[in-house]
Amino acid sequence: MSETLRNQPLLTLLSDFGDRDVYVGVMKGVIAQINPKITVVDLTHQIPPQDIAAGRFCLMDACSYFPAGTVHVAVVDPGVGGKRRAIALQFATGFLVGPDNGLLSGVLSQNPAIAAVELTNPDYWRTPQPSSTFHGRDIFAPVGAYLASGVPLKELGREINPETLARLEIGKISLEKNNITGSIQYIDTFGNLVTNIPASYVQGKTWSVQVGEKIINGCSTYGDVEIGEAIALVGSHDWVEIAINCGNARVQLQMNLGDTVQVCY
Amino acid sequence: MSETLRNQPLLTLLSDFGDRDVYVGVMKGVIAQINPKITVVDLTHQIPPQDIAAGRFCLMDACSYFPAGTVHVAVVDPGVGGKRRAIALQFATGFLVGPDNGLLSGVLSQNPAIAAVELTNPDYWRTPQPSSTFHGRDIFAPVGAYLASGVPLKELGREINPETLARLEIGKISLEKNNITGSIQYIDTFGNLVTNIPASYVQGKTWSVQVGEKIINGCSTYGDVEIGEAIALVGSHDWVEIAINCGNARVQLQMNLGDTVQVCY
Amino acid sequence: MSETLRNQPLLTLLSDFGDRDVYVGVMKGVIAQINPKITVVDLTHQIPPQDIAAGRFCLMDACSYFPAGTVHVAVVDPGVGGKRRAIALQFATGFLVGPDNGLLSGVLSQNPAIAAVELTNPDYWRTPQPSSTFHGRDIFAPVGAYLASGVPLKELGREINPETLARLEIGKISLEKNNITGSIQYIDTFGNLVTNIPASYVQGKTWSVQVGEKIINGCSTYGDVEIGEAIALVGSHDWVEIAINCGNARVQLQMNLGDTVQVCY
Repeated sequence: MSETLRNQPLLTLLSDFGDRDVYVGVMKGVIAQINPKITVVDLTHQIPPQDIAAGRFCLMDACSYFPAGTVHVAVVDPGVGGKRRAIALQFATGFLVGPDNGLLSGVLSQNPAIAAVELTNPDYWRTPQPSSTFHGRDIFAPVGAYLASGVPLKELGREINPETLARLEIGKISLEKNNITGSIQYIDTFGNLVTNIPASYVQGKTWSVQVGEKIINGCSTYGDVEIGEAIALVGSHDWVEIAINCGNARVQLQMNLGDTVQVCY
Repeated sequence: MSETLRNQPLLTLLSDFGDRDVYVGVMKGVIAQINPKITVVDLTHQIPPQDIAAGRFCLMDACSYFPAGTVHVAVVDPGVGGKRRAIALQFATGFLVGPDNGLLSGVLSQNPAIAAVELTNPDYWRTPQPSSTFHGRDIFAPVGAYLASGVPLKELGREINPETLARLEIGKISLEKNNITGSIQYIDTFGNLVTNIPASYVQGKTWSVQVGEKIINGCSTYGDVEIGEAIALVGSHDWVEIAINCGNARVQLQMNLGDTVQVCY
Repeated sequence: MSETLRNQPLLTLLSDFGDRDVYVGVMKGVIAQINPKITVVDLTHQIPPQDIAAGRFCLMDACSYFPAGTVHVAVVDPGVGGKRRAIALQFATGFLVGPDNGLLSGVLSQNPAIAAVELTNPDYWRTPQPSSTFHGRDIFAPVGAYLASGVPLKELGREINPETLARLEIGKISLEKNNITGSIQYIDTFGNLVTNIPASYVQGKTWSVQVGEKIINGCSTYGDVEIGEAIALVGSHDWVEIAINCGNARVQLQMNLGDTVQVCY
């Protein structure tokens, strides 16, 4: 951890807790009780309830923009209180804390875990008898706060082999000579369709996307087409993305998560 | 106030202001003008408009997780600009600031007020002529910021007897030999149904809940039943709660706030 | 910049990014990488997608409540990646950073720009090759973070004449002897209708508002009328406003943005 981050520790939160209840506020209270110097940043709490795949994408998307040493606490946890492990792990630029259900595996697909523990040491929980339904408050938030305060990872519990961590794989892509078939892995709040085809396959090429019967040309930015027209581009997430200039591609193209997309070049 | 909190003062905000407007941001600006060192934590701003009962529950639920000395500013205030008093009070672990309309009375039911004042001293308002519609900005936020900065409670206005504070009582529970009748006092964003029956009545017992004709067994955690099945459990709020494993109990059981629930053991 | 703000720099964010995605969290990560001491305050991220007029109103409404030296980063940017300029400017009490599309012009109508630059210096961007769709992350957030850290405005790019900045004018008001005709310029989350008629025209007078056939008397606060009744008042925004006591004026009066309103006195 850098000296700066030790003085100004940073912790992010991602969950499906929404903003109607005080669940997120309560986690911040627990964190402040442990170390009021920690700056907490919300990634999002609007992951659809129990949608591990959406949480996985968003966490993977955000992590790389934070300073080295940042602790990321993520809770989309339909199996809370059951047999899934609670884990913390270290990767190249920070730490991840959350349930071992695939939620963290998007980050790991880009940055392998250096070390991992199962959270078996109740000294770092809010209480030795955690609630069976709110590990975010009782285990993940306090463990994250201790990590951000400099407690070594291995203090938090039993070391585990990173190879045993749960993985959630996104749809495969298949490559042929002049085209790639993939699918929609995420749809953002603007209705932009993020595919699972990495930008590197199209950069520097002339390319287009086929969805159903429709051909959409690859361009640079929204304004390259008329208002209301569809466009394919390299999105800010570094995946091939389909959008409508000043419109909502999900609605106007009637596409959903998992739908097939073909890139041709 | 602890030495830590004096150096790193903490203030929470709860309101029905939503997140579409800049009302909450404006309150944070007013706070930063008074003391930029205050850390502000949002409990929630999605209390349904003017729903004092929901605000009362959420505030009561969250307060106990914050460090001693935290100042909680709460604004669900249909009577703003009218005759209801603006108040601040001290309780065992912190301070409360808001309208005297019952919003603060959930916390007080668990932690009696030690001292209370009516906010009659305009030296601690944003302006001596506050808006008649936005006391959050003009009275409650600045008073909270001064409290968090160490201004003594009694400086803020005229002392009042805590016995005179407005109370909003939740539905009564009635106890018989082998059962308790209560009601739903809160429904969270997942559709979990929080009753007004304290967890202490069922802990260590074999118990079940009856809603309408349906009997739901008391269990430990969601995973104790199949996906889609109803479960009764001690929720993280420490009340008897009814949920659906990976589902929405409000929708699937068609229950609403105030509906009757019977616990049998 | 005051000494306090130099030690405790403050930056606000306003956008149409919503809260479902991690766009806002990513901007905060980029800011923390540049200077983890910056306190970031969200004004709102729920501006309707690409609605520059709503963003303009909200930014104008909020800015004046923040300490001198605050940096306001605003991103409602349908022309991102196209020909609109990216700008930063200084006004009496702080700095504005965003696209030159009229979004910043509400603040400027109340506080003229002292100096302005086009953001042409990539040394202060996240990367010399910014994404064509997310200048919030790649240009505006980092530029705001450097400004908040004390980098002089003129370092950020080519100086431009403030007279050339894009303006978005709100509907005109027309004055006759005993009345003013204006229109609805903003509707808040409670359904309160904010007109474009400044409060100064009615203060100290007996006045009423006519919408369609309906006459609504000017009063001081919601409680001056029965629950469910319409009221005209000087809102907290310092514009003439129409509300329903404990109700939603947009729904109950069936009024929309731009609808005509006449004030009589």
